[in-house]
Amino acid sequence: MITLDKIYHAAYVLKDVARRTDLLPAPHLGSDCETYLKTENLQVTGSFKLRGAYYKISQLSEEEKQKGVIACSAGNHAQGVALAASRNGIDSLICIPATAPISKVEATKRFGAQVCLVPGVYDDAHEKAVALQKETGRTFIHPFDDPDVIAGQGTIGLEILDQLPDVDAVLVPIGGGGLISGVAFTIKSLRPQCKVYGVQAAGAPSMEKSLADGKPEELPEVHTFADGIAVKCPGDLTYEMCSRFVDGVVSVSEDEIAAAVLALIEQHKLITEGAGAVSVAALMAGKFDLKGKKVVCLLSGGNIDVTILSKVISRGLVQAGRSSELTIELHDRPGELKEITAIIADLGANVVSVFHDRSANSTDVAGCYLRVRMETRNWEHVRQIRSAILDAGYTIL
Amino acid sequence: MITLDKIYHAAYVLKDVARRTDLLPAPHLGSDCETYLKTENLQVTGSFKLRGAYYKISQLSEEEKQKGVIACSAGNHAQGVALAASRNGIDSLICIPATAPISKVEATKRFGAQVCLVPGVYDDAHEKAVALQKETGRTFIHPFDDPDVIAGQGTIGLEILDQLPDVDAVLVPIGGGGLISGVAFTIKSLRPQCKVYGVQAAGAPSMEKSLADGKPEELPEVHTFADGIAVKCPGDLTYEMCSRFVDGVVSVSEDEIAAAVLALIEQHKLITEGAGAVSVAALMAGKFDLKGKKVVCLLSGGNIDVTILSKVISRGLVQAGRSSELTIELHDRPGELKEITAIIADLGANVVSVFHDRSANSTDVAGCYLRVRMETRNWEHVRQIRSAILDAGYTIL
Repeated sequence: MITLDKIYHAAYVLKDVARRTDLLPAPHLGSDCETYLKTENLQVTGSFKLRGAYYKISQLSEEEKQKGVIACSAGNHAQGVALAASRNGIDSLICIPATAPISKVEATKRFGAQVCLVPGVYDDAHEKAVALQKETGRTFIHPFDDPDVIAGQGTIGLEILDQLPDVDAVLVPIGGGGLISGVAFTIKSLRPQCKVYGVQAAGAPSMEKSLADGKPEELPEVHTFADGIAVKCPGDLTYEMCSRFVDGVVSVSEDEIAAAVLALIEQHKLITEGAGAVSVAALMAGKFDLKGKKVVCLLSGGNIDVTILSKVISRGLVQAGRSSELTIELHDRPGELKEITAIIADLGANVVSVFHDRSANSTDVAGCYLRVRMETRNWEHVRQIRSAILDAGYTIL
Repeated sequence: MITLDKIYHAAYVLKDVARRTDLLPAPHLGSDCETYLKTENLQVTGSFKLRGAYYKISQLSEEEKQKGVIACSAGNHAQGVALAASRNGIDSLICIPATAPISKVEATKRFGAQVCLVPGVYDDAHEKAVALQKETGRTFIHPFDDPDVIAGQGTIGLEILDQLPDVDAVLVPIGGGGLISGVAFTIKSLRPQCKVYGVQAAGAPSMEKSLADGKPEELPEVHTFADGIAVKCPGDLTYEMCSRFVDGVVSVSEDEIAAAVLALIEQHKLITEGAGAVSVAALMAGKFDLKGKKVVCLLSGGNIDVTILSKVISRGLVQAGRSSELTIELHDRPGELKEITAIIADLGANVVSVFHDRSANSTDVAGCYLRVRMETRNWEHVRQIRSAILDAGYTIL
């Protein structure tokens, strides 16, 4: 059972462990509302998960603490449990699928956990963890469907109400639903007129679908780069809490998420992982009517692998018309490359790469293709460049 | 003249304009000291420059305010002046070299300035700004060599002393020297036992050289991706203040800066530009003896172009042995690619790209080269993979 007492107790227990993360104004993200960012990506371990894991572990009996804990995760929960256990002076074992990025495995070890790398994907690691739990008698720390874990996440709601007492709406990422259950319970208990909305990735809309169907539903598969919220099925408790306390759930596309990650980097100098940015993605895509409201977007985490980050940046730039590629048919006559680059330069775009392909199947035997990648201002700018090249008599593929 | 009174006055004036940026603990960045990050990259406009520009502009006479201001900058100063002028309700004109990234030009416009794009580099834009100043009678806002600008930057020193009263050392980036002059003056006035150290890019060590020579020196050229501190010559005032209040200046290499930018992204979810990360670069490279000390690294800004950011990430990964490339000579026999990829996979590295080049000048006519890029854990891991491939009888170039 979750009570407001429990949330306040969790806040007390977490006082010296979790950071009271800043609430930063973000005037340009939402066009018609007053936006703030709750920066749990700057939390210790890089995500909110420390809160729930620490509170859960702190409440174990002495006997349970002596046997240690076990968890399964490829990401934030692993790091949260690892640090929470170390700080409580107890032993932790985390099963991680072998496909997880090296950086996440290293971080989990650095926070003090033993790591068991399991061949395969998440489900395989989970199976292994369940087996090891039975063998060892360790306590299994569920990533979301647990009242103590939910209470720990709920402390974020207390901080938001303290930092922005007249908040009108809070947008929260949903994977399994632990974060939003805690935040929504806290906010609805203290300020019922404040809306709490959930956001999922379109490739993993398990809570959205479950709420629509009136019962927890398991998706056959999930597919999103927002791996922190790629969850096939909500928990029983989190489903029940969301159906009671959440005002609405939407989902956002991969491109919308990439655009949000990029906007947070450029405008706010903040790294968020895909899951961490879905609240901002929903805001930017206008998924809710928030006109004139004071809105908090919860940034849940920042643990994104840097190789994925580079791809997300590229994708976000393409999405915004700021990086674009044209393939132009040439006749392989001298001066054509010069003419095209002159058109591009005159219109103020920067060429970043050129690929000149003579072997491609042009309509003209002597012909060839020129592929030019440019830095541009926006889609309007791209359109100007395209029409100037067409006007000069070239064909754009 | 700079006085502590002036700094306190600036802090009062800036109260509703500049953000009191968070001081975040960074336990893993320095190996033997207690490190904190003063996050001026999270300042409004993405850098500390707003403070000095706003205070300077607020102190203009009514007549000066009516004529407006002018400045020259390719980066943070442009955005700082633009927003400071808008907030004071006065007109601003910023000369920007046409080579500046589109994103910086757009940001300056968004903060409300008129932009004059000047063909050429910084010096050309500066010349144009000086000419336009004479024509228009606008007040020229110097980026660093001005007592009011320095007093504005000095407010960061007050905040650091308030956030960490027993600080032992502060590491500050130096370009022209305005930031460190203000911070060092404030800290030495209130807590003289605290050390204040400066950090420059090795490709633009103008203050380091000037202090060594005992007078302001102009470098013939500067070359660094940390464009925010690529300054050829310190100011007269900033030189004099640094020689009185700064305990030492070092410089860091491009690779050291890239490693710092990457560490801040991965460990702290913070975007810094090259200039913004030099304090952390000096800490990580062990440039100062800080054993057992409480150290603040000032992160001066986060306005890095995302295309440069991607390159910096790649370079930082190579530096840390986490991305590495091997070129292996093959004899173009079936099964060789399989054998090599098996060796790499068995040792736990991820292959990210493979380039198989038959046209290269191998020693063997039938031979060819295989270039493999991998994600690796560290240099030790790279060494293991190299020796396993050598042991299997291949030649690595």
